[in-house]
Amino acid sequence: MEEVIIAVDLGGTNVRVAAVNPEGKILHKISFPTDASRGRERVTENILSKIHEFLRRFPEEEFEVIGGGFGIPGAIALDRGIVSQSPNLPGWEGFDIRSRLQGGFRMPIFIENDANAFSLGEGWLGAARGVKDFCCLTLGTGVGGGIVLNGDIWHGTEGKAGEIGHMIIDVDGPPCQCGSRGCLEAFASGSAIRRMAIEAIKGDEKTDLVERCGGELETITSKMVYESARSGDRLSRGIFQKMGMYLGVGLANLVNLLNVELLVIGGRVCEAFDLFIDPARRELEERALGSMGKRVKVERARCGDDAGILGAAYLVKRELERRKR
Amino acid sequence: MEEVIIAVDLGGTNVRVAAVNPEGKILHKISFPTDASRGRERVTENILSKIHEFLRRFPEEEFEVIGGGFGIPGAIALDRGIVSQSPNLPGWEGFDIRSRLQGGFRMPIFIENDANAFSLGEGWLGAARGVKDFCCLTLGTGVGGGIVLNGDIWHGTEGKAGEIGHMIIDVDGPPCQCGSRGCLEAFASGSAIRRMAIEAIKGDEKTDLVERCGGELETITSKMVYESARSGDRLSRGIFQKMGMYLGVGLANLVNLLNVELLVIGGRVCEAFDLFIDPARRELEERALGSMGKRVKVERARCGDDAGILGAAYLVKRELERRKR
Repeated sequence: MEEVIIAVDLGGTNVRVAAVNPEGKILHKISFPTDASRGRERVTENILSKIHEFLRRFPEEEFEVIGGGFGIPGAIALDRGIVSQSPNLPGWEGFDIRSRLQGGFRMPIFIENDANAFSLGEGWLGAARGVKDFCCLTLGTGVGGGIVLNGDIWHGTEGKAGEIGHMIIDVDGPPCQCGSRGCLEAFASGSAIRRMAIEAIKGDEKTDLVERCGGELETITSKMVYESARSGDRLSRGIFQKMGMYLGVGLANLVNLLNVELLVIGGRVCEAFDLFIDPARRELEERALGSMGKRVKVERARCGDDAGILGAAYLVKRELERRKR
Repeated sequence: MEEVIIAVDLGGTNVRVAAVNPEGKILHKISFPTDASRGRERVTENILSKIHEFLRRFPEEEFEVIGGGFGIPGAIALDRGIVSQSPNLPGWEGFDIRSRLQGGFRMPIFIENDANAFSLGEGWLGAARGVKDFCCLTLGTGVGGGIVLNGDIWHGTEGKAGEIGHMIIDVDGPPCQCGSRGCLEAFASGSAIRRMAIEAIKGDEKTDLVERCGGELETITSKMVYESARSGDRLSRGIFQKMGMYLGVGLANLVNLLNVELLVIGGRVCEAFDLFIDPARRELEERALGSMGKRVKVERARCGDDAGILGAAYLVKRELERRKR
């Protein structure tokens, strides 16, 4: 009998389901659209049925499914298993997600915020393997975060801790999605890269981005800025340097507050890792107190798109091991 | 036999020594100048002799001195008991302070950073009594901080965590003492109040501060700004409001990152608590994610000048209780 964990990464756009063994090997995975607009009941129904279908690949004679782990976007009141905040899944606030999921299975179910699951994945098998104290940042459309202290996610009083993307680093900075201003997310996310590029072009700097977008500045994407930077465009390269500088300020704050051993940077924007990491490291070294900025390690996440799935699987593995003790 | 703890708050200017009982009652205390310029050996020698003299008040027949707790300015590598950074006690870097102190006594000695000791004092007998997760800020000449998670100081990998005053909230802000720019300390400390007042006067705003300093702007102190504000001076009141706004941004960051239950504000600048707390609370509510800013409690520290001493005593009490178990 082989032990298998069902791990689910529930995103605003796609759901990824994987069978993971207790050593972290992904045996099989599937992906399907979340269709968030259909509402929480039908989305959950669909996920449950997809998982049941998926489970047929693992017949009872050969496999023991030991549990299910779910990474979910938004803040979760872990004591009650209820979604307390969820910008990416509108209408999920107050949803008793754990009971709903648990109702569909005999196996034990564990849930966690998606950025925290990402951090656990990197801690289990990625860049933070063996490290007790670290912070993870996921640079995507927004900036997600996870704070791991003493080997465990720091959840805080209501389970909402770790919002690294909404650390204010520029009191009068540009508006952030969250309603505040000058958050790290407003400088170090895909959306920020896009915004900074458009601003720079309006400031009359020369760039091949104008051609790339056919003169329609509003159609510029962070991907275009990235491609432009790769092809050597000065303005676009400058945007990533600027973004790196701001990222470094955010990293310095994390180090000054938490004196962690390691900072892990992941997310889609990391395709441009080499374009922003030097200014980030420089700023971090200059801004952190004493030698902390030099001593803290900064590494690129290693599990790629699988970090969330592996973290969700780790939730199950860890909890079942604890119970055995 | 009455149990007594010797608690020491070693400051850059003064040393305070107290005898504290295990319930936190201060039985007797003394204070004397640190004379930091005399160098670490003579400063320590002087402290040891003063404590021995102090101990004569507690004869062996009546009192059992169960341990000594020391709050020390600067970062301490707690595993080795060595001062790793100490801006307020020049030349103490690398000093094996624990061995040096322990050598002077038979009782067990415990050391902690001073802002952390302050936080432990507030947690034991002050505003954070019974609260597991909180942050303490001490607003004095600089801004000190302590982060308490799960009822214990969060020290971080090298023992340097909790530098709340050096969280950058304005990437291009005014220079900070530490070499960085736009740190919370550059906005919410006594020095910052002084600086902001001088800047505002140079910006040609009217104020009775000009009279108060006899026209010599450089002689303005934060105390003058405070007195001016109390007497109704508009500019001076505005400075405390501005300072409160920046403080609120810093508090929002702490809440977004750590989702603590309580924020405790102490230090000398708290004489002006009523002058800055409303804008601070307002900014915190507006800037923290979701309802976190409304739910977190913000309170003024309650142990006054004794917080550091009580925290130092708590180090001893807690550790001896742990050992008993």
